[in-house]
Amino acid sequence: MMDKSRLEAFSDGVIAIAITLLVLEIKVPVPAEGGADLTGQLAHQWPSYAAYVVSFLTIGVIWINHHATIRRIRAADHTLLVFNLLLLLVVGVLPWTTALLAEYLREPHGANLTAMIYGGSFLLVTMLFYLLQRHILFGRNHLLHDHIDDTARRRIDRRNRLGLAPYVVATAAGAWSAYLTLALCALIAVYYALPSTAYEAPTNEP
Amino acid sequence: MMDKSRLEAFSDGVIAIAITLLVLEIKVPVPAEGGADLTGQLAHQWPSYAAYVVSFLTIGVIWINHHATIRRIRAADHTLLVFNLLLLLVVGVLPWTTALLAEYLREPHGANLTAMIYGGSFLLVTMLFYLLQRHILFGRNHLLHDHIDDTARRRIDRRNRLGLAPYVVATAAGAWSAYLTLALCALIAVYYALPSTAYEAPTNEP
Amino acid sequence: MMDKSRLEAFSDGVIAIAITLLVLEIKVPVPAEGGADLTGQLAHQWPSYAAYVVSFLTIGVIWINHHATIRRIRAADHTLLVFNLLLLLVVGVLPWTTALLAEYLREPHGANLTAMIYGGSFLLVTMLFYLLQRHILFGRNHLLHDHIDDTARRRIDRRNRLGLAPYVVATAAGAWSAYLTLALCALIAVYYALPSTAYEAPTNEP
Amino acid sequence: MMDKSRLEAFSDGVIAIAITLLVLEIKVPVPAEGGADLTGQLAHQWPSYAAYVVSFLTIGVIWINHHATIRRIRAADHTLLVFNLLLLLVVGVLPWTTALLAEYLREPHGANLTAMIYGGSFLLVTMLFYLLQRHILFGRNHLLHDHIDDTARRRIDRRNRLGLAPYVVATAAGAWSAYLTLALCALIAVYYALPSTAYEAPTNEP
Repeated sequence: MMDKSRLEAFSDGVIAIAITLLVLEIKVPVPAEGGADLTGQLAHQWPSYAAYVVSFLTIGVIWINHHATIRRIRAADHTLLVFNLLLLLVVGVLPWTTALLAEYLREPHGANLTAMIYGGSFLLVTMLFYLLQRHILFGRNHLLHDHIDDTARRRIDRRNRLGLAPYVVATAAGAWSAYLTLALCALIAVYYALPSTAYEAPTNEP
Repeated sequence: MMDKSRLEAFSDGVIAIAITLLVLEIKVPVPAEGGADLTGQLAHQWPSYAAYVVSFLTIGVIWINHHATIRRIRAADHTLLVFNLLLLLVVGVLPWTTALLAEYLREPHGANLTAMIYGGSFLLVTMLFYLLQRHILFGRNHLLHDHIDDTARRRIDRRNRLGLAPYVVATAAGAWSAYLTLALCALIAVYYALPSTAYEAPTNEP
Repeated sequence: MMDKSRLEAFSDGVIAIAITLLVLEIKVPVPAEGGADLTGQLAHQWPSYAAYVVSFLTIGVIWINHHATIRRIRAADHTLLVFNLLLLLVVGVLPWTTALLAEYLREPHGANLTAMIYGGSFLLVTMLFYLLQRHILFGRNHLLHDHIDDTARRRIDRRNRLGLAPYVVATAAGAWSAYLTLALCALIAVYYALPSTAYEAPTNEP
Repeated sequence: MMDKSRLEAFSDGVIAIAITLLVLEIKVPVPAEGGADLTGQLAHQWPSYAAYVVSFLTIGVIWINHHATIRRIRAADHTLLVFNLLLLLVVGVLPWTTALLAEYLREPHGANLTAMIYGGSFLLVTMLFYLLQRHILFGRNHLLHDHIDDTARRRIDRRNRLGLAPYVVATAAGAWSAYLTLALCALIAVYYALPSTAYEAPTNEP
């Protein structure tokens, strides 16, 4: 068993760095000979700004959820550390999937593939988060602070599993339209950022 | 309601990373054939150094103000987390607006636009900071440690709103001269860094 | 003697940043004229993904071990700070050794050399970790929380020394095949990530 | 007055990020056509490795000293925050001065200049550190935990001022030989990393 404070510090560090590295995908246009139109160049790279905002909000919501989850546990066992490490591994790759989508959103070839990779990386984070939650709920080590009865556990688990659905849809939508994936991911992030729909960590409240 | 310590840790992380990523916009000149003049090349990129210093001081002042604000509250509610996330979203973009200004400060085309983007990004941070303050002062959740009466709240709110003015001026000045925007942003940062003019967090002291 | 909390904070910071910088070696393919095959381009750079995953897991395991070690000590003396700094110096270089292996894994020339550098950098981390452990076990300052008798100390030290062997093998294997080095490093990381084989910090439990 | 824990967290963050960004100056050689000699290419960029190691150790020593200083104070006033921010501003620029020296160390033109910039940036950090110390020792706010009499204060101040000398020499030496600057900076870092010569924070011990 491990004290959870350093787990929080390390996770906060990785999430904070990944969220801040996102900006590296927004390029500074090279000053052109003969007074080219900077306004046009900056406007042209709007997918970079859109992808930055959507990814930033999504990682921000991941962080809020991560926080809400970890504060409910007493301590961390080795399995939780490993799930958490896998979660951070995928969070760490988000600056790349974001840069990829920003680069290919308007390309005739590649937009659908990169949108599915983009949505899929969020789906993967959500799945790992679900597994981490499951381990907290049903693991042998009873990591939760409060006692939660079996009915409540199963109800929370069911609701968490439902939480995967939006990203399944957003990922699949990429096969049809990359813009749709980006719009859906934006909606999901805004939805979770709204107070009333904020993620609820494992608890026995109904 | 959320314990504020992890909010501080995450915000400190993002601000510290954004401030340190600023250095990436200062380029190492490529060694030239035939012994070109490195002194000249380094001197020529003075806008990079100026933009680095101004942005570093400004983000540093943002951090000091952020700290002064968060320590006055008891806890963080969901709305505060979201305002804080939006604030960090704009802070995270400052390395890009800094690199943009450094690249275009002396260009015949683009200098005015990039100066307005540069000043505007600071203005946006200040506006989000103002909204965060307003939520702390007037929000239903009474996030403040100490009781502050209504007259004091309104006085603080008025003063905070006045704090937006310098960046409105600095941003607008960019339409006339990019150098002026940079100089004004430098002045504002130095002014706030001076002890006597340090930002005052919500409190009932007159 | 130094309070260990800031040592942990600084080490967590450097390890978290190094692990998150790994993503910078995964490139975004340049959109090609005439609709080139993005799927093929992304598939072609699989060494980048493989190297990312192996290095991320390895640094993650380093972090878990580092945590397990530091929590057993009472305080940090100057020698421990210096060993820790050297350890972080090598951890800080891992994004480069990872990028190097990813770039050269399939090259006819350079693959063996870069694999040996890659394995060697992990070996060096492990050696410095071993020295740090030795200092904790046998140093004059008695940094451990709990008393451990001499027989136990020597047993732990022997086991720690054995822990160097896998990376000696992985590094040497690079002379024969770079793929083998990468596979062995993956195996070692997965092995240490498994709960039952988790690294055991100095303790007097048998 | 400000609680010092967030000052430490923010400073640790900036120092940890600056030290980890150092690795970005070590380049991955582009795989050459026709099986070029990677060993030669890697050996050829030894200034990058040397500059990395020297800067990493120096920033590490700066961190150890920073820690030793901050733990002696009760709280931070605004002046200390500003000195600290300026200190971090120069620490944040060290990845650039390091990359600059690595690039120009062997160039016929530019080596001397970049060596003086390299040494000068360390000198500037040391000077700001000295001013921060002076403020702690003699400032009106009595930031120290323990009472120190005037004789002791002046003795400590004198010794701190002497601490500037090595970097004055290392910087000036750059006018003669860039290699000498690098070697002197290496010596200074190793000297301060040795236990017996570790930096002594303000205290009344003789």
